Amino acid sequence: MSQNDPIASLISLLSRLPGIGKRTAARLAFHVLEGDAQYAEALGRALGTIHDEVTQCERCGNYGAESRCTICQDPRRDGSVICVVAKVPDLIALEALGTFRGRYHVLHGLLAPLDGVGPDQLPLDALERRIAEEKVKEIIIATPLNVEGEATALFVAETLSSSPVRVSRIAAGVPHGGELEFTDQVTLGRALEDRRAVR
Amino acid sequence: MSQNDPIASLISLLSRLPGIGKRTAARLAFHVLEGDAQYAEALGRALGTIHDEVTQCERCGNYGAESRCTICQDPRRDGSVICVVAKVPDLIALEALGTFRGRYHVLHGLLAPLDGVGPDQLPLDALERRIAEEKVKEIIIATPLNVEGEATALFVAETLSSSPVRVSRIAAGVPHGGELEFTDQVTLGRALEDRRAVR
Repeated sequence: MSQNDPIASLISLLSRLPGIGKRTAARLAFHVLEGDAQYAEALGRALGTIHDEVTQCERCGNYGAESRCTICQDPRRDGSVICVVAKVPDLIALEALGTFRGRYHVLHGLLAPLDGVGPDQLPLDALERRIAEEKVKEIIIATPLNVEGEATALFVAETLSSSPVRVSRIAAGVPHGGELEFTDQVTLGRALEDRRAVR
Repeated sequence: MSQNDPIASLISLLSRLPGIGKRTAARLAFHVLEGDAQYAEALGRALGTIHDEVTQCERCGNYGAESRCTICQDPRRDGSVICVVAKVPDLIALEALGTFRGRYHVLHGLLAPLDGVGPDQLPLDALERRIAEEKVKEIIIATPLNVEGEATALFVAETLSSSPVRVSRIAAGVPHGGELEFTDQVTLGRALEDRRAVR
């Protein structure tokens, strides 16, 4: 096959996906090529149109087909609690729990000064507007428990310091099933510090 | 997000790829969605058009952009030796060696009676025509060393039994770096049986 052939360019595009190396990309490309042409076209169409068909909810930043996402449109959701998440997959993980009945605010990023993501890139003006307009009582900060997530949580909390809302952070601690013996010191320290009364 | 949304359908299509589970498919879909729209469109186009842009070489079955593949078009290749392979990735692996200067015949499958692949599905008539037309002297059977590959190799050899060509099979043996202690009995048995003289 020549250098500039469609298979090589498909493999090269596939290998730009996260976790897909050159060998896996080749395996996928040949699988698609040996398989059903209709499937290849359907997958190609789904990928090629995803940016057009999916929009961010104008209010919370969740993905959806309309200007307001299904959660923002749902009148049964409790508008007085907003859960702040870094990205939509985190929202989906929380939705899978089925216990949170409030709404969300998706940051689509975390503070990362070294990558050029500063406070201005996070939609916190919009969050403050929502607090005023939607009679919000509590903001739950559910950014991840890593360095960027913690820094962002701190920054969100500070930004809202003059707001009348309650601001909370999801708990840090030993995960379910975790052995204390094999838990890192930071986690163990926080689990001890954030201990809760049982009686 | 609603049940019938574009993200869910993209995830579902991606999870039909080999080795891509539901979680990986979701990760890929969100990566594409969060990333550059131009990349998503390029990948979508590459997948959607791959069946149109790639044709099988009318002579050997290799993939290419024209009716004859680049190997069949290359006058420097030795037409007197044809290497029979199960699929194009096997051909590519052999080409990567850089030592084989003959041409190929791609079966695009192996005998698998339980999956409904019988002798008629393999392009052996075409191989016999090539032997007659291209002054072929040797057929090297390079199907894999598993049950289907061995059965197919036997069948190809039998089909060509009345042909004047030499028919050979790639060697079975202990792989490079392999410890005898951890080599399976079939491999070890064949390595012993197919031993070659060293002096």
